Amino acid sequence: MSEGDKIWTAGLVVIGDEILSGRTHDKNIAQVASWLQVQGIRLAEVRVVPDVMERIVEAVNALREANDYLFTTGGIGPTHDDITVDAVARALGVEVVVHPEARAMLERYYKSIDKELTEARLRMARVPEGADLIPNRMSGAPGIKFGNIHLMAGVPHITAGMLDALTGTLEGGAPLLSETIGCWTPESEVADILRQAEKDHLHCQIGSYPFFREGRVGANFVIRSTDREDLDACVAALSSALESAGFATTSGGI
Amino acid sequence: MSEGDKIWTAGLVVIGDEILSGRTHDKNIAQVASWLQVQGIRLAEVRVVPDVMERIVEAVNALREANDYLFTTGGIGPTHDDITVDAVARALGVEVVVHPEARAMLERYYKSIDKELTEARLRMARVPEGADLIPNRMSGAPGIKFGNIHLMAGVPHITAGMLDALTGTLEGGAPLLSETIGCWTPESEVADILRQAEKDHLHCQIGSYPFFREGRVGANFVIRSTDREDLDACVAALSSALESAGFATTSGGI
Repeated sequence: MSEGDKIWTAGLVVIGDEILSGRTHDKNIAQVASWLQVQGIRLAEVRVVPDVMERIVEAVNALREANDYLFTTGGIGPTHDDITVDAVARALGVEVVVHPEARAMLERYYKSIDKELTEARLRMARVPEGADLIPNRMSGAPGIKFGNIHLMAGVPHITAGMLDALTGTLEGGAPLLSETIGCWTPESEVADILRQAEKDHLHCQIGSYPFFREGRVGANFVIRSTDREDLDACVAALSSALESAGFATTSGGI
Repeated sequence: MSEGDKIWTAGLVVIGDEILSGRTHDKNIAQVASWLQVQGIRLAEVRVVPDVMERIVEAVNALREANDYLFTTGGIGPTHDDITVDAVARALGVEVVVHPEARAMLERYYKSIDKELTEARLRMARVPEGADLIPNRMSGAPGIKFGNIHLMAGVPHITAGMLDALTGTLEGGAPLLSETIGCWTPESEVADILRQAEKDHLHCQIGSYPFFREGRVGANFVIRSTDREDLDACVAALSSALESAGFATTSGGI
């Protein structure tokens, strides 16, 4: 495999009791996943862990060793249950320090809204020693970048701002392209056709996503590849095979 | 710790490229998490992995060894990318067989909608040898139960039906109780109060969940415990400390 073919991967650790209790519906997995696709980086695994030091350390170490990049969401706020910085510092074997620039950002932010920079708020300037900051235009409290590790907020629209700040800064491979073919048929009717199309197009993967809508059964078939030519050929072959078998297709999905 | 105090835990493996690509927003984590709470079982970790044999095997083995129960969602349909049954059988070191009762269910179902039980559809009757079935009233294709391992559908409303069929059948501990206090204040203003309340109530955990709504900053504080008395005492102490510090609280959350 040449350098240009390298598949860049990322792991994501979602940190927070609120996700594991079902109280909060995670929105960051989909958000980070979609953003990574555009950067040419594949999300290889997600782990959701509670606000417990050893569990965060374990997940961070497992996923940073297995992937080119690691992202975390959650646990970087000002309260006692926000222990992501401490856990990542422990995983890396470095100290936790107050980042002078983060402190200055927080001072400016709280001054602008006429509030004190309390001890609790100053927690949000703590970083693993040697880390850089990821700007956050929403609330003054920055995200944290330590080599290929990125610590981001749990609140989805703040995470979005941090991803925006990182856009284009990470090395990635060819972005994964995808095309969707929709079909008002149970996927089980066309399983053989899907299997054959994937077999015939080595650089493509086909996912089958069934749904029930308006009282009818259908499926979207998503063809993914980093190779535009093979992707287009696979889409054409699959559409034609489905049509020949008597199933009308909807380009772009249903 | 006496037997009655045992904390029962579960791991969840969410299987599917569509979640890791960001195409599909997962709804099963929150659904399974909430359901487990009611069964007195704590969701200890979630892993999201792609439709790749070794990755599923690895996650299944890690989480089943670490927890009392394991659940999976996704990858039990009729198409080529549905390999959960094969992966779990490999993790368990058993063969994959066609379950006669599952086969009969599928035969009845497809006959009822005037369709053939094709080879592809018959895939949905395959189970790790020795497994039992979890009924699925939606589509005929059952979930699979093998000891403390439960393989469920990826489509959320089918998963819901399978969870419903399992309700009350699993041994669990005292259900985790929770109360929520809402406050229109930045969480950073009250971090010390939260920390103190948690310290004073050993059987309680307090989570702080900030939000921005209607242009204002607030937070919900969720107090969790299996001990009703300590929970009520903590809620009373926290509410009173917040009110004393000048922050109006909303019982039940905002």
